[in-house]
Amino acid sequence: MSLDEFGLIERIAARTRARADIALGIGDDAALLQLPPGQQLVVTADTLNAGVHFPPETLPADIGWKALAVNLSDLAAMGAQPAWCTLALSLPEADPDWIEAFADGFFALADAHGIALIGGDTTRGPLSISITAMGWVPAGQALRRDAARVGDDVWVSGHPGEAAAALQLWQQGGLDVRAAAVDGDLERLRQRLQRPAPRLQLGLALRGLAHAAADVSDGLLADLGHIASRSGVEAVVKGEAVPLSSALRRAFGAAAALDCALRGGDDYELCFTAAPEQRLALEAVASRLALPLTRIGVIVAGQGVRCEGDANGARASGYRHFTG
Amino acid sequence: MSLDEFGLIERIAARTRARADIALGIGDDAALLQLPPGQQLVVTADTLNAGVHFPPETLPADIGWKALAVNLSDLAAMGAQPAWCTLALSLPEADPDWIEAFADGFFALADAHGIALIGGDTTRGPLSISITAMGWVPAGQALRRDAARVGDDVWVSGHPGEAAAALQLWQQGGLDVRAAAVDGDLERLRQRLQRPAPRLQLGLALRGLAHAAADVSDGLLADLGHIASRSGVEAVVKGEAVPLSSALRRAFGAAAALDCALRGGDDYELCFTAAPEQRLALEAVASRLALPLTRIGVIVAGQGVRCEGDANGARASGYRHFTG
Repeated sequence: MSLDEFGLIERIAARTRARADIALGIGDDAALLQLPPGQQLVVTADTLNAGVHFPPETLPADIGWKALAVNLSDLAAMGAQPAWCTLALSLPEADPDWIEAFADGFFALADAHGIALIGGDTTRGPLSISITAMGWVPAGQALRRDAARVGDDVWVSGHPGEAAAALQLWQQGGLDVRAAAVDGDLERLRQRLQRPAPRLQLGLALRGLAHAAADVSDGLLADLGHIASRSGVEAVVKGEAVPLSSALRRAFGAAAALDCALRGGDDYELCFTAAPEQRLALEAVASRLALPLTRIGVIVAGQGVRCEGDANGARASGYRHFTG
Repeated sequence: MSLDEFGLIERIAARTRARADIALGIGDDAALLQLPPGQQLVVTADTLNAGVHFPPETLPADIGWKALAVNLSDLAAMGAQPAWCTLALSLPEADPDWIEAFADGFFALADAHGIALIGGDTTRGPLSISITAMGWVPAGQALRRDAARVGDDVWVSGHPGEAAAALQLWQQGGLDVRAAAVDGDLERLRQRLQRPAPRLQLGLALRGLAHAAADVSDGLLADLGHIASRSGVEAVVKGEAVPLSSALRRAFGAAAALDCALRGGDDYELCFTAAPEQRLALEAVASRLALPLTRIGVIVAGQGVRCEGDANGARASGYRHFTG
């Protein structure tokens, strides 16, 4: 079967939602979009390649979900309201069943957050998904990496390390990424790897509360290191404060679990800094969103990132994907 | 050598120009951009894959140029002012020389039009380049495919068919895409394939003059067919009016040259429709831009596209890339 560029993109485009701010969607040379007045445009682009960013046997619906999730996570980390995206999909062959399953996962996440697909193309090649996601934030209110201040608390959402744990289990042959696990802990870890939840509501709630923010894609210490580096400060994490889920501890033991949480990537939780005066407000956000927010450290004068009480000391090296 | 995602994208990002409308560029989770008031955002995304969209031996500088050119051409076809782009680059290995040469071509074109790179990533994988280009147009002034009217003239810029001719010559072993040809005609054709010029100034000049427009990426008849289809009209092309360059006629003879011009893709000229009252104004645009604009047909009531005086009759089938 030959890959029909026109038929494929139309098949995907037909499933996108409409939005009132789209003057012209897929079908012309480009899309025409209406940004609300007073807003800055927020743009991010990320690619997933088969065998590099996800196991080759990953289900197409999970690939569709995750390719969009990693981009929406970047918008979340800016405190942006998501709106539109483009999709560049390279496929070895035009398999309608694969496309429909991919679109199932992609639009499950897109529709949950009201995102519309406004452009892109399908080309023949090894499986690769490049997405550019767009949204907006009121001018001056974005959560930037360079805004951490000495004296800030360091916070993280959710339970980092679970996606990395699932990946390790898959590499050891102990987890089938294509099927729900019977064991509840294993299934929780698998879901975290295959269907990460971009923290968009949290990003919006952090506007005006947090100073700096980043999403945890490379690893907690690595991404916090980016904040420290761009802000010209040092981040000190207290190892015993890092939240380790029961599923993670039961699967790996406390020490290895902490290593996953500090250095594992692909969780797409948010790591952020905020003044101590915001603690009550942040606890209220956690309660409202039913999402744990945990204080794990402080920002001090200096540079770099370190973790107290971690057996691996200063090794903050980031995640380089599983074949890296 | 391992591919270092961080080092590579920084190496490329360091070469981008600054723009006053970029509040935050590469280095954070996402870019922050300021759209001028009263403008609609114009967004397009296109991918080039090695061996599908360009010969595998193509020079990296030509790949960098062309990957951006095909996207800027879509902005041109909307009458948009180009501004920013993201770049998703998949590479088999991190070769600094290759990256620098790619960037040479990419930024030669970007700088010529004042475009800034504001995001993207580099990943390991078979060579693939996905770009999302952004710009703007005053609300209501975009050149859309669905705006052709019965009675319009059909126009095309430049000399279509030359890129397809170069591709045929390469396929027959008669053209080295990596080196300047000694023969002047051959070199002209080679340049048209390897370094297409997006018609951005023409797109801007056509605002208020043209009704519908599209860029010629799939082939003149195919792209004109998109205009006809979306506008609910028929386009009739007069074969003898289609401008054939001397280089194209000398290389292929008149009949084959016309076939290249009608059905060859990858030229990135603009095809557009305009009321007959605009002829003088359009001739003035052609003169000002030193770019030929030729009336090649008319829009009538009906549907589809046909070419009078073409030996291949109604076959309007588009370009499907050289391995298609």
